[in-house]
Amino acid sequence: MTATLYWEDLHPGSVRELGTTSVDADEIKEFARKYDPQPFHLDEEAARHSLFGRLAASGWQTAALCMRLTVDNFLRHTTSLGSPGLEGLKWIKPVHPGDRLTLRHVILESRPMRKRPDTGLVRSRWDLFNQSGDKVFEMEGWGIFRRRAPATAQELADFEARRAAG
Amino acid sequence: MTATLYWEDLHPGSVRELGTTSVDADEIKEFARKYDPQPFHLDEEAARHSLFGRLAASGWQTAALCMRLTVDNFLRHTTSLGSPGLEGLKWIKPVHPGDRLTLRHVILESRPMRKRPDTGLVRSRWDLFNQSGDKVFEMEGWGIFRRRAPATAQELADFEARRAAG
Repeated sequence: MTATLYWEDLHPGSVRELGTTSVDADEIKEFARKYDPQPFHLDEEAARHSLFGRLAASGWQTAALCMRLTVDNFLRHTTSLGSPGLEGLKWIKPVHPGDRLTLRHVILESRPMRKRPDTGLVRSRWDLFNQSGDKVFEMEGWGIFRRRAPATAQELADFEARRAAG
Repeated sequence: MTATLYWEDLHPGSVRELGTTSVDADEIKEFARKYDPQPFHLDEEAARHSLFGRLAASGWQTAALCMRLTVDNFLRHTTSLGSPGLEGLKWIKPVHPGDRLTLRHVILESRPMRKRPDTGLVRSRWDLFNQSGDKVFEMEGWGIFRRRAPATAQELADFEARRAAG
């Protein structure tokens, strides 16, 4: 059992390998039928005539696969409370059936929350690579984590002063 | 049968209502088991003790539901070729079982593609509202669409000149 990681334990610059996953043609088509029924996610022949060249996973399935690795190998061991949002989702290369996908997570930034002093925010970047080492997907975004101890007024004032100083 | 919309037909400022959907507790849990197994997406009791207060859909499922409405009520009638990326995904309020979700799509910007003159890019914003009229989710991003006629050298030069002029 891994010790629970609180907001205070999530340090900018820390890098985590969040494991490996893959998706087969049936799973690609099943997701697509439910959420993204475009021909190049549903049918090999249609995909051959598309920009993707071969059957390709919905970009939303690629993102969801990253989420699964992130829950299993990171969030599950933290005080995560959810996410307010994400930025910069980039679908760089298609994900094909059987691709071996490896996820890396980097913490970029950390900040206390004035409105909820028992929590803090962490900004992260996720990079997903295939078996050839090509980056196929990346995104950045924020997570909310419970703190060990609430932010003090002094800590919040110091944080604002550092921000104002650039 | 709706006439197919090419890149040239997708005008900045145009607003489309992309329909209504909802998700029930079983679908929320099924998605969560596969892609986002956090307690507040899996279990009513755990959700009651979370920031969400009640069982809430994974943010990725909310995004995927928007994709489904977008495919069914917009992309299916266009020459869409896929998306290079998105920005500014914001999960503003939780999505609960039975919520009636309505999606609006606004085209923000349009530009030719120098590298692939037979295609063009369109930047859009999606706003998702619940039955109370509260916005629960928004995002912005780019789509690639086939053109009726390839960009001419003159069109590309004019576009670059306008951009340089700000």
